[in-house]
Amino acid sequence: MTEQATKTFEVIFEGTGRSSGKMRNDISVEWPMMKESFELATDEGPFHGGDGTAPPPLALFTAALTGCLMTQIRAFAKRLKIDMQGVEVKARLHWKGDQIGMEPYVTEAVSFGLDVDIDSDAAPERLRELLECAKKGCFLEQSLAKGVIVGHRLKLNNEWHDA
Amino acid sequence: MTEQATKTFEVIFEGTGRSSGKMRNDISVEWPMMKESFELATDEGPFHGGDGTAPPPLALFTAALTGCLMTQIRAFAKRLKIDMQGVEVKARLHWKGDQIGMEPYVTEAVSFGLDVDIDSDAAPERLRELLECAKKGCFLEQSLAKGVIVGHRLKLNNEWHDA
Repeated sequence: MTEQATKTFEVIFEGTGRSSGKMRNDISVEWPMMKESFELATDEGPFHGGDGTAPPPLALFTAALTGCLMTQIRAFAKRLKIDMQGVEVKARLHWKGDQIGMEPYVTEAVSFGLDVDIDSDAAPERLRELLECAKKGCFLEQSLAKGVIVGHRLKLNNEWHDA
Repeated sequence: MTEQATKTFEVIFEGTGRSSGKMRNDISVEWPMMKESFELATDEGPFHGGDGTAPPPLALFTAALTGCLMTQIRAFAKRLKIDMQGVEVKARLHWKGDQIGMEPYVTEAVSFGLDVDIDSDAAPERLRELLECAKKGCFLEQSLAKGVIVGHRLKLNNEWHDA
């Protein structure tokens, strides 16, 4: 038996996206438990029929994944009592799409890689331990590692249906 | 045999994240093929030791996932010749974390749901077809559905090591 009980905490984010410009979406994101809200947006460049008024969704995702791991590295360095001055992470996220003529294409991830440079005098094994903990604590890496089937409902004739 | 060959295209995003404030990360994201770049940032609120100068990573992710599906709905409506005036999507993303005392916690996704309301007079079966295509074209839903093990390298004694 462990001396301390395992505690579980929940993290729930809610978003409401509304199409606005040609390809722009304005998305209000709320973190109800923390009473925080954030006004975000995505758009596409002219090549993809947008006006380039905001980053494309995959740019936000790149920042989210990179920032999520970095945040856990910094938060867990404190818990593991590892001194660090800063961290730099380079991300390379690679997807592909297959399409026949101009039919809607089908996408998939090819590989995601993160290179982590922690500014610290700690021993290599301690930095490896820190990165291992950060991976397990990173909400997005864990979601990707186990996989998530996103549930959908579609409004049809003013009623919600699973879709 | 199909009349038209299947074409494959690659989508690669690169990010460089640097820790700045207490928990703030400044992340430059590039889409080299499109010669586009985006300056993004994440932070945490005071409760999590940050200064609240930018949205937390999970807020960016919520916007990314919501915006990605919305973008595909709009792009593919054109390809499928479905008239639509707009779309509203509500997202609810639920994670949990387990922790023992103040040890680093371990996270996992509980459920992600997207409610899709397309403003269109198209028949229900056509809207279902559109949503189905958008799911398969959404880079982030597809990444989540199949799962991705993120690769990591860690700089130790000035050399890169798999980690």
